[in-house]
Amino acid sequence: MVRLAKLVIDSTQLENYKALLKEEIEASVRLEPGVITLYAVSEKDKPTHITILEIYASTDAYKAHVQTPHFIKYKNGSKEMVKSLELVETIPLVPGMKIK
Amino acid sequence: MVRLAKLVIDSTQLENYKALLKEEIEASVRLEPGVITLYAVSEKDKPTHITILEIYASTDAYKAHVQTPHFIKYKNGSKEMVKSLELVETIPLVPGMKIK
Repeated sequence: MVRLAKLVIDSTQLENYKALLKEEIEASVRLEPGVITLYAVSEKDKPTHITILEIYASTDAYKAHVQTPHFIKYKNGSKEMVKSLELVETIPLVPGMKIK
Repeated sequence: MVRLAKLVIDSTQLENYKALLKEEIEASVRLEPGVITLYAVSEKDKPTHITILEIYASTDAYKAHVQTPHFIKYKNGSKEMVKSLELVETIPLVPGMKIK
């Protein structure tokens, strides 16, 4: 399961949001074998525009992920910071691709 | 150097384009130590919309990449297939992030 999450963040909350997302990402990849990666970037010219490449081992791994305490903390904590969120389901061109 | 490439492909050329891109990506990550990843996805609902997360070790690694025979073959071969290309420079939130 491979997805792009596209977010726009309230500019006054950007540093708080990034700290919260970083904490959530680091906990997820450390604690959940089924979270294969969460690679988040912010655009240089539009720093409030965040894209996350999300790879989960399976739909079940994703369902388990959204019930973890670290995800729930992130979701509740970021509610007032996220101006928009678009989730785009995708198909990888080279499924076994890694980051060296 | 971390970038998002956002492409829209001519729908009549999509399979040809994907084969060409796959060949270029596989050669790049195999032959070039400075190409850290090229993670390409197509959108399930809009298969002609391709996004590539591109990570290079440095600007020099990127400059060398665009002069390789496999990149030049891809660039020339895809010229008539690519309807639009947007290159977005980004900053990673967790620079050491991997794909498990």
